[in-house]
Amino acid sequence: MSMIRHFSGQDIVMMEQRSRAAFINSLSGFKSVSLVGTINNLGQTNLSIFNSVIHIGANPALIGMIIRPNSVNRHTLENLLETNCYTINHINKDIYKKAHQTSARYPKEISEFDAVGLTPEFHSKIKSPYVKESHIKFGLQFAERHDLKINGTILIIGKVIEVFVPENCLTLDGVIDVEKAQTITTSGLDSYHSTNRLSRLTYAKPDTIPSELIEK
Amino acid sequence: MSMIRHFSGQDIVMMEQRSRAAFINSLSGFKSVSLVGTINNLGQTNLSIFNSVIHIGANPALIGMIIRPNSVNRHTLENLLETNCYTINHINKDIYKKAHQTSARYPKEISEFDAVGLTPEFHSKIKSPYVKESHIKFGLQFAERHDLKINGTILIIGKVIEVFVPENCLTLDGVIDVEKAQTITTSGLDSYHSTNRLSRLTYAKPDTIPSELIEK
Repeated sequence: MSMIRHFSGQDIVMMEQRSRAAFINSLSGFKSVSLVGTINNLGQTNLSIFNSVIHIGANPALIGMIIRPNSVNRHTLENLLETNCYTINHINKDIYKKAHQTSARYPKEISEFDAVGLTPEFHSKIKSPYVKESHIKFGLQFAERHDLKINGTILIIGKVIEVFVPENCLTLDGVIDVEKAQTITTSGLDSYHSTNRLSRLTYAKPDTIPSELIEK
Repeated sequence: MSMIRHFSGQDIVMMEQRSRAAFINSLSGFKSVSLVGTINNLGQTNLSIFNSVIHIGANPALIGMIIRPNSVNRHTLENLLETNCYTINHINKDIYKKAHQTSARYPKEISEFDAVGLTPEFHSKIKSPYVKESHIKFGLQFAERHDLKINGTILIIGKVIEVFVPENCLTLDGVIDVEKAQTITTSGLDSYHSTNRLSRLTYAKPDTIPSELIEK
């Protein structure tokens, strides 16, 4: 690595607004990137790209995401509170440009599915639309909301109520091979990346060193 | 892709506990993976791997993470509440096995820095230790806490008070090139991946289609 550059809190405050957004958005490293599908009670669908989806817990099965209520996310928030449900759909290399385009500020009466050319897919357990072109997708029921006082964003937690996964991406120990499913990752605000597995490591215990895990 | 397998909420509840943990931890796709460094008021350091670090906002500069208080994360929580500060350190290919090993359940009097062979590095603005071998790292001041009622985990939000980045990973528009800094990503509970940038895309607007952004 080259010389290390130091930025103080004051340096960050003084950055031009868009540079600061790009800089701070880079700090959390690689992020999940997914499409969140919702519908309102009038049957109007919405699709929005999120890079803040996180694991909250496995039992019960909970996934969280941060919503910025004044951003293009606002229709997602309105719809999921109206219907109590939403879908999360992984993004693969074939659809990432269309997925990125859902972040444009379309008026509420335009569905991003139509605008960007992705296909809504409906299943019986949940009203919300899935993305047909997505390989791994799951449906959620709204479960808990936390309003973050410090900047007005909202943590939405949902309970996983169904999951769709390609059969050949399931391993015997429960892991879904998201790389095999061609799921991609993102960094910053606009950079998309495919991945190469380095290895899976064995469960860490104090008196052993981790070794590479061989899948059954 | 192959045949699609469907899992209902009931299928998930019925999974064997470790398989369910692996399965649900795979759903959020690729995740950030970082080392969180803390120290207590007695000078005892702690280092813990986290895969739940997320961007909360750029102005003020805020980063969140989910802590499981009954897990190996508990010393991180105790220390950061005691000193009001902590560091987040990106993980690269050279140190990921050592980083993974910090998830072993060491007793409180053992520092994971010593146990796994990483080097604590101290700077004047913050008491907490950084990881010398990490290429991108930043210091935080504890800012806000949300206890998630649904499963007893905790969202900790910190304000970024300083950042260290290799000079050659900074781009003119503020983005930090985390791939160039060799930062890696993770999936599930134990899988580590390097990345290949597909492209950066231009800011999305309703009446244009995104194109590949050329860095200045």
